[in-house]
Amino acid sequence: MQHPHVVGIDLGGSHVSAAVVDVTGSILGVAETDIDRMAAPDTLLRQDIARIVKAAVSQAGVAPADIKGVGMGLPGNIDREHGICRFSPNFQWRDVRVALPLQEAVGYPVFLLNDVRSHTLGELHFGAGRGLASFAMLAIGTGIGGGIVIDGTLIEGAHSAGGELGHITVDPNGPLCGCGNHGCVEALASGPAIVRAAQKAILEDRGNGILALAGHVDTVTPAHVARAALGGDLEASAMWEAAGRWLGIAIASVITTIDVDSILIGGGVGQAGELLLRPAREEVGKRCRMIPPNTTPIEPAQLGERAGLIGAAALALESVGALKPALQKRMHARIEL
Amino acid sequence: MQHPHVVGIDLGGSHVSAAVVDVTGSILGVAETDIDRMAAPDTLLRQDIARIVKAAVSQAGVAPADIKGVGMGLPGNIDREHGICRFSPNFQWRDVRVALPLQEAVGYPVFLLNDVRSHTLGELHFGAGRGLASFAMLAIGTGIGGGIVIDGTLIEGAHSAGGELGHITVDPNGPLCGCGNHGCVEALASGPAIVRAAQKAILEDRGNGILALAGHVDTVTPAHVARAALGGDLEASAMWEAAGRWLGIAIASVITTIDVDSILIGGGVGQAGELLLRPAREEVGKRCRMIPPNTTPIEPAQLGERAGLIGAAALALESVGALKPALQKRMHARIEL
Repeated sequence: MQHPHVVGIDLGGSHVSAAVVDVTGSILGVAETDIDRMAAPDTLLRQDIARIVKAAVSQAGVAPADIKGVGMGLPGNIDREHGICRFSPNFQWRDVRVALPLQEAVGYPVFLLNDVRSHTLGELHFGAGRGLASFAMLAIGTGIGGGIVIDGTLIEGAHSAGGELGHITVDPNGPLCGCGNHGCVEALASGPAIVRAAQKAILEDRGNGILALAGHVDTVTPAHVARAALGGDLEASAMWEAAGRWLGIAIASVITTIDVDSILIGGGVGQAGELLLRPAREEVGKRCRMIPPNTTPIEPAQLGERAGLIGAAALALESVGALKPALQKRMHARIEL
Repeated sequence: MQHPHVVGIDLGGSHVSAAVVDVTGSILGVAETDIDRMAAPDTLLRQDIARIVKAAVSQAGVAPADIKGVGMGLPGNIDREHGICRFSPNFQWRDVRVALPLQEAVGYPVFLLNDVRSHTLGELHFGAGRGLASFAMLAIGTGIGGGIVIDGTLIEGAHSAGGELGHITVDPNGPLCGCGNHGCVEALASGPAIVRAAQKAILEDRGNGILALAGHVDTVTPAHVARAALGGDLEASAMWEAAGRWLGIAIASVITTIDVDSILIGGGVGQAGELLLRPAREEVGKRCRMIPPNTTPIEPAQLGERAGLIGAAALALESVGALKPALQKRMHARIEL
């Protein structure tokens, strides 16, 4: 247990968890609860989340006065400087003050960042990004989030939207994405895209291998499709192959744009590992021709299921001055929403 | 005329020009000549190019001792640190020493950079990039080159390939690009792509407006297609519309990745201006949904025909310490070619 301590909060669509984390990235205590994402933000922050923060501190056996700050990752467009959520499709929030009410409720300074950007910060300080000058991170789950580090700095961009890699267009006439664009990689390679492909196969009588694992067409998850593929089901393998190729097109676009040292793949669906990474690497090899093939490693992220907590804690540790700074210094233009 | 002076060299496929430039970006004298790009690099550098450098100095009326350095932009993958051209498809060069032989022939320190990256540096110091914290530049001509500035730093990337924006995939099954990939924006929106579309229209009897301006199907240029479109030719307008939309998909991908303050469009074909920029902006508006529509300006670059010379001079001025540094400090990994 090394000082100082902070709390990291991972806020998802139906669940929130909080962890006390020390300066080495070790978790000392965790608390969690289900939430109603349609609840009033103020209630959610001042009641549910504040309670979980206090429970994590108590569970860690740390004196409340030893907690120096709280970091929180939130899906959406985040104005870090003002602790405001500009837009979160998941929570249907627009211009919601997040840091201030939570700070008043818990009595610690609260720092806010997009969830996958804070995950990226976590990988940089404590995970697969250690020692890399530059990398791009893609977290594949219900959506596809991203983060970019160049010369050791997390690139938030002019309007805090830098690293929204799930919304790179990979198929101009592709399926509608939740963002309103057509053919985003998120619409083709995220968990729901894989589940849709599996459900279609089941309805067309090509998905018996997957159905046997899932029990019912409505309960298919990406994990079922992964297990079927690993068990030799060719239809399931083809679904990962397709998703990996779309992912590879997006990765090729990132490499072509910023030529990073490495690409890290995380998130729940990213745990499919080589099922997804092998076709992604092949596609990148075919498309990135300005550098020799396979120059840029495409590897799993390291923080796993605790990435959200450790990333949010890394944000807090950095914000209280306990870690070498990686957050971009100046914010540029400001969006008026 | 303000000290110090440098020489900028713009080396194209069939032509080389050199200009003496002062610290304000003003051109004091120019010399140019045609070249044979298939000549031995050593002959080209020590004879043709060295002669043009000396002619420019003489034409500017500057004492040779007042020249502090020479900058050169070259299409391809450039190892700036060692002054080596790693790969230039245009010149069919691989691992060619460029800075050293020229330096020996002219007696000034020689600095080398990819041509559009040096153009980007020129826009940053002397053009449309002044005062911008971040921007991406696309130069549209025979190919599409690019450059990226983040927090005032030109991003060269881990293998000097950062900013190769012409090779972003915009149509996964699109036409073959010179790089070997399919559906790069360069294969769909560069000068040759527009000329091919015009020639196809002429052969299918839809291109009489363009043919009237060009005289013959084999002599069509993008300028003819632009003049036809400005004169009300609907077929020609549709060609710019299509090219602009493909360009917009690539720009949307850049904005989604790094969320820059602004996008600058340069190069000879970029001079088509609104013919290309209007459909590009519309496409970006449809595809970049994580920030409000039209948040990121897409505007013409400013340096025009002299961009290559002024960019190369900016590289030299910066390298001799006469301009605020914008070149990325550390090079990361090194490619073994």
